Amino acid sequence: MLIQGRQYRTIWLAPDKKHVRVIDQRFLPFKFVVEKIRTVEQMVRAIKEMHVRGAPLIGAAAAYGIYLACAQAEKKRRSDEFIEQSFASLAASRPTAVNLMWALDRQRAQLQKADNPMDKKKRALQVAERIAEDDVERCRAIGHYGLTIIKRISAQNKGRPVQILTHCNAGALGCIDFGTATAPIYQARKQGIALHVWVDETRPRNQGRLTAWELREQGIAHTLVCDNAGGLLMRQGMVDMVIVGADRVAVNGDTANKIGTYLKALAAYDNKIPFYVALPIPTIDRNLANGRDIPLEKRDPEEVLYINGIKRGKMERVQLFGTGSTALNHAFDVTPARLITAFITERGVVKSNKLDALKIE
Amino acid sequence: MLIQGRQYRTIWLAPDKKHVRVIDQRFLPFKFVVEKIRTVEQMVRAIKEMHVRGAPLIGAAAAYGIYLACAQAEKKRRSDEFIEQSFASLAASRPTAVNLMWALDRQRAQLQKADNPMDKKKRALQVAERIAEDDVERCRAIGHYGLTIIKRISAQNKGRPVQILTHCNAGALGCIDFGTATAPIYQARKQGIALHVWVDETRPRNQGRLTAWELREQGIAHTLVCDNAGGLLMRQGMVDMVIVGADRVAVNGDTANKIGTYLKALAAYDNKIPFYVALPIPTIDRNLANGRDIPLEKRDPEEVLYINGIKRGKMERVQLFGTGSTALNHAFDVTPARLITAFITERGVVKSNKLDALKIE
Repeated sequence: MLIQGRQYRTIWLAPDKKHVRVIDQRFLPFKFVVEKIRTVEQMVRAIKEMHVRGAPLIGAAAAYGIYLACAQAEKKRRSDEFIEQSFASLAASRPTAVNLMWALDRQRAQLQKADNPMDKKKRALQVAERIAEDDVERCRAIGHYGLTIIKRISAQNKGRPVQILTHCNAGALGCIDFGTATAPIYQARKQGIALHVWVDETRPRNQGRLTAWELREQGIAHTLVCDNAGGLLMRQGMVDMVIVGADRVAVNGDTANKIGTYLKALAAYDNKIPFYVALPIPTIDRNLANGRDIPLEKRDPEEVLYINGIKRGKMERVQLFGTGSTALNHAFDVTPARLITAFITERGVVKSNKLDALKIE
Repeated sequence: MLIQGRQYRTIWLAPDKKHVRVIDQRFLPFKFVVEKIRTVEQMVRAIKEMHVRGAPLIGAAAAYGIYLACAQAEKKRRSDEFIEQSFASLAASRPTAVNLMWALDRQRAQLQKADNPMDKKKRALQVAERIAEDDVERCRAIGHYGLTIIKRISAQNKGRPVQILTHCNAGALGCIDFGTATAPIYQARKQGIALHVWVDETRPRNQGRLTAWELREQGIAHTLVCDNAGGLLMRQGMVDMVIVGADRVAVNGDTANKIGTYLKALAAYDNKIPFYVALPIPTIDRNLANGRDIPLEKRDPEEVLYINGIKRGKMERVQLFGTGSTALNHAFDVTPARLITAFITERGVVKSNKLDALKIE
């Protein structure tokens, strides 16, 4: 993605291969910070505390975490148990995005084939790099298939800008590049299709500000709205389509995504507006027949009770509510498949009943 | 309502009758500030900038505003035109709550009967005091009728606390006392019925913090949630009923209320959870057959882009989004009558098709 006119990815290996670099998203949009991650412990913290976030990116970050663990094991002659513990702490770092488990499974399968620490390190790096590269290609393909939908609506609109609503950040920042929900938008923009994006604020973590920042850097017209506003916009005919990402999709199409997604899906359904979930195939959980058993992360209530913003160029954390009131902070909800028009994947746009047939290439 | 153990209303005449006092809600829950309002111009500002808010309170505040205008006219020998202008600026101060127009109409009808400035002042005060007193009684009656619903659910729950979700502040702070949506809750609490309230944050103005503060002062168990969370709570069986207030209700039951209400109504409907609108009859707009023509206020985008909170005991305003992104800030949406289980009024609990028959006593 373009950041101040320069191409970036969200995660990459340092030239000396000794550490991994990530965009530390806690400081966006106020400050562009690249963090050096040297150990698996630092990677666990980066995932847990959301320096990196977004299901595809979490998957890649976990894979790089295993590479760092293998590098630590080799250098400091640490036991296999250390690597096992690293798998466990990465797996526990965030519970909902299934991409994390998928990436760890791929690492495990490769490491089992290795016969010495050096070989482990080498294989772990190959897997991590492959996951990252693949994700870029997956997102590019999602963009390609999603573009057909935007084109169709643009033709129906007779040139009036296509109005797209999105929730949270399923953008390049949540992936390695391009994004899932944003990939079709970026391709449409390249083709000169007029469009405008309604960006849900996405409380409590306000990932909408990541999306707004990302769209602005790519030069895409957009407007921020509170999470409460989407229903009215749809009733007023100001939304042509909704695209969101996903953290885990059950085989029947029930979709766990950022808290509040379900409400937007209900509103889209009520207003006969197409509602799309854009996802790479590793986001499908083959072990879950439906969304009932998707583990939904609860996070610290302080994320609701306090917020970060800037004042006079300085990042400040202010308290939003009176002391003595508590909060509940679910990070995700589940949108039932019946509310989802179709899924935009790297293998095409499919209905929920075709999800199970999609295999990872 | 109780505030630090003392009884308060949101608006009252000073003992010397020379000014009106209001709780300045911009500082809650962080600081309890009582503001003295001496002129109609100050009252217009107090309504516009939301020192006072909530449809019933806005109505009473506008009525007191006319009293202040009449007092200014009498004292400074100002023309009738001044009073006319006062009507116009109060009417324009906030567009959605119909209670404001209703209160001004009542004032106008009385002032037409007056034959001198002193008489005008006297009549205007009577009307304002009457509107305030009536509102207290209306809310008390809403509480009485709403209580029957809570009691029924409590019996079904077999003692398990009744879980109520509310959006915005339709509490005592939005009225003169008791509130609309909260009145049944306060009466249930008095009768020892176990209950718990989910308080929607209600971006962008975060009136949920007013509700949380108000509930805490009355000793009611509650938990704050982001506006995004209600759908998940309902799907997880954690909500027994929803009660919200209203800013303007069309004759067919279409209801304008704080932005985001529609999304909660959709979720309640999807989960077969009863969704109630609590309102005094002056909130019904007899001139509107349905919700299509309710004027929906758009407010300053800065309300979305910045937020107030406290840091080290000091109120701070921080910027939430990157410079260069704009926002759209609709204050209200319209919930179609088909999603509303019933209306809790001071004349009983009625379905939408009975609203038109309710006359003001």
